Parts: sequence; C-alpha cells; structure tokens
Amino acid sequence: MRSEGFTPSTTALAALGGQRVWSLMVSLFGDLAQGSGDAIDGPVLSTIMTALDVRPEATRVALHRLRNDGWLQSRKSGRISQHSLTPKGRQESAAASPRIYAAVPNLNEAWQLVLTEDASTETDSGLKAAGFTGLLPRTYVGPATATAPTNSLSLPGGTPPDWLRNAVEPGGLAEDYAALLHALTTLRADLPGPDDLSPLDIAVLRCLIVHNWRRLVLKHAALPGGLIRADWPGYQCHVLVSDMLAHYPRPALHDVSAAQSG
Amino acid sequence: MRSEGFTPSTTALAALGGQRVWSLMVSLFGDLAQGSGDAIDGPVLSTIMTALDVRPEATRVALHRLRNDGWLQSRKSGRISQHSLTPKGRQESAAASPRIYAAVPNLNEAWQLVLTEDASTETDSGLKAAGFTGLLPRTYVGPATATAPTNSLSLPGGTPPDWLRNAVEPGGLAEDYAALLHALTTLRADLPGPDDLSPLDIAVLRCLIVHNWRRLVLKHAALPGGLIRADWPGYQCHVLVSDMLAHYPRPALHDVSAAQSG
Repeated sequence: MRSEGFTPSTTALAALGGQRVWSLMVSLFGDLAQGSGDAIDGPVLSTIMTALDVRPEATRVALHRLRNDGWLQSRKSGRISQHSLTPKGRQESAAASPRIYAAVPNLNEAWQLVLTEDASTETDSGLKAAGFTGLLPRTYVGPATATAPTNSLSLPGGTPPDWLRNAVEPGGLAEDYAALLHALTTLRADLPGPDDLSPLDIAVLRCLIVHNWRRLVLKHAALPGGLIRADWPGYQCHVLVSDMLAHYPRPALHDVSAAQSG
Repeated sequence: MRSEGFTPSTTALAALGGQRVWSLMVSLFGDLAQGSGDAIDGPVLSTIMTALDVRPEATRVALHRLRNDGWLQSRKSGRISQHSLTPKGRQESAAASPRIYAAVPNLNEAWQLVLTEDASTETDSGLKAAGFTGLLPRTYVGPATATAPTNSLSLPGGTPPDWLRNAVEPGGLAEDYAALLHALTTLRADLPGPDDLSPLDIAVLRCLIVHNWRRLVLKHAALPGGLIRADWPGYQCHVLVSDMLAHYPRPALHDVSAAQSG
C-alpha cells in the first residue's frame, strides 16, 4: 500500500530525466538488495517499478537486459520469481557505494596539488582513478590522503582562492546539480515523517534519491572538502541526500514484501 | 703595465661572443665606476679597452653612442677627458647589480608554487617582474620571499622531483651557460694569484667575468635555490663568478690609473 500524499512530492525527482529503466533498476538493487543473499520477489519488484511510474512491459525488458548483462539473476521459488544481483552486479554496486553513500565532506578537509612530469593520457587516467581532479594540463587536485604518482610534485594545499574552488567543480554538471538540488529541496519540504511512510514507500523514495544522485556523483571524482564552496549545489545536494537517506533508512526486504502483500 | 701570462687565460672568455663594445663598456663602468663621483680617465679607459682587444676607433664610437643614450658623460679635466656614468646610467647599473653580484643561493632555499586565476600577459609580466619563473601556463615558481598576486594560489614548495628542477632552468641558455662554465673553469685554473696581477689586469679580468655573466643571468629570473640542481651549469657558473670576484676584488680607480701611468 502506498501512503497518501507521497506521489506528488517525488514527481520533481522522477521528472529529472535520465530515468532509463534498467539504470533505475540498478539503483534499486544497489540500494535495497546489495547484501549477500538479498533477493527481491517478483511481485514486490513490480509494485516498486509501478510506483516509479514504469510500465510492466518496460520492467520486463529491463530485467531481461540486466540478466543478459550478467548484472541480475532470477530464480523461481514456488510460484514467484526472485531477482537478485549476480556476484558481478554485487561487486560493481559495492565499488560504487563508497561514493554514493559517502559522508558529507568536512569543508576544512586537507587537499593536495599535484604536478605531473608529462601530460600523457596514461598519467591522466591514473590520477583520475586515484581520486584526483584535473585543474590544468599536468595539474591536479585531490584529497591529501590520495596517492600521487611517484615522480610527481605533490604539495599540501592551503586556503584556496575562490576561483580555484569554482575551477574544480564539474562545470558540465552545474545545471544538473542545480536541478537536483531544487527537486531534493522540494521533496524534503513535502515529505511525511518516516513513521508515516510504508517500507515500500521508503524503498521507492530511496531509489529515486540514490538514482538521481548516483547519476551525477559518479561522473566526477570526489572533491576534497577543503576545495568545496559551501554554496556549490553539488555539495548542498550531498547534504540533502545524506540527510534524507539517514532519516529514511533502508527498509528490510521482508518488511517491503510484507507491506506489499498486506 | 699588464702582467705576464694573463692574456692567454682570458682568451676563452673574450671569445664567447656577444662582445659588443658599448655593452662591454656598460659592464666595465658598472663594475669599476658605479660609485657616486667615480670617473675613468681617458687614457685608462683606452688602456683597458685595448686590453679587451677593442680598437681605439671602436672605443670612440661606443663612447659616442653611450653619451647619446644618456648612459655616460665626459668632461675635460686639463688635457684629459674623464668619463663617468650619468645618473640614469648609474641607476640602471645599480638596478642590475643585485642579480649580477648575488650571493650563490643555498640549494635548500625555500620556494613557492603559484597558480594564477588567468593567463593574461599582464598577470604573466607582473609575476616575472616579481621574480617568478613560468613553469606551465598559469603556473609559476619563485622564492618563498617573493610576493604572489593577491588572488593567486600560493603553496610552499617541498622537495622537487628532478624533472621540475630541469623544467625551470632557462632552456634557451643551456649552451651559453655550458660555454661560459668551460671558459670560467679554464680561466680559474690558469689565473695567477691576485697579488701577481696589476690593478689594471684585475679591472680587465673582472670586466670580462661580469660582462659574460651579466649577459646570461639578466635574461631570466633568479631561480630559488631549492629548485636548482647542483650540476646545472648556470649554478656552477654562479659559484665560479662569485668566487673569482671575491678573490680579485674591485681595484680602486686611482690604483688603476697609477698602474697605467706607472
């Protein structure tokens, strides 16, 4: 059963675009059923996907695709199917989780500036994989804890000028973060308390939050807190996402099933 | 009177090129007669210029040019002319002296890295005037004591990787510094002791050292010691120049004159 008054407030989130069904389903399984042995019963999955405004046919196509990709697996248990992450799907979900569920950074967090000897794509990829953000050719910033290449110059950062904070923000995502911030702010203001939402509502709510956050945050490296401006929409989204995921904790799968069959 | 055995050892220095007569004369006056009230008598100047392998006609042309440029002035005193720096010539010589006569830098000297907000030529010129060396677009290094622009990022430097030491060396002067190092090394090995050289010989020797050093060192900003590699020819030249100028101190003008007339 869905709770009254919930649908309107998630509309803004659902309207953000980028809601490819298979991708939404990746977010759902990653948030709700990442644990070893977790599975979502077919009828529960259908109910959630319907609540996410996805037609049954589209859900079936997405399930098929994710099984073909080796991300999901399905097995019959009596009359119903149970869907779960494959080891690969679980591994990749686990790899993304530290970014998606990261605590809000401390804005005084130490950072470092790195200058590399060359501008090769290999060096560039290595630094980005290590959590650095490109600032200028051969010049990167990253958390003080990130490991700079052996032969690079690494200097501890100080108080950055404003232009530097602006320069490291992922410019191509500015509009997307602003739109997400608007949607999250609206949602946060309208949400019933956690006790007034069913486990299934919470599963849907979390899926929408995680999905829209994930789409943006995984497109760039985490900025070190010391380089983040407090009014950057990406940071403010992080505060709201973190706050809402904490206020509406992940429901146990059996509670979601019980709510559905109740 | 010139001392025996001196001429051959300065040949290497004199052969380095870039010996435009007026420029050589700027070096001579800057080293020998920069003090307020200092003047070089015509016959002494002629003797020195001859020792520098300059023909009398070329000396006269250079004197004429430097007077026209407002760098030198000449006045009659009885039968001889006395040549001296004008206030302008003295001021410009004084402005260059801190670089020319700088102490050899400590190779542990602290340095800083500066990132500018923009890449304008105005910003670039300002930084270079303040003693910074360009490393990459918008990226400079300089002594820790240099003043970075207000809105830039300035980070204290640490132990630099080798490539960084190489990168800040003025690449276009590598051959010139190597040639000067060779000439100075040869000269240093062959030189008689200071007591075996006349004041006039020392004036000529210093003029050649200062002139050839000045031509290179004034073409780039002083590198902070912490970024200099010990085997950089520019640094090794500095060590030799500093050593020789200290071993063969500037003679008093009246001693040079006395030697000439003696």
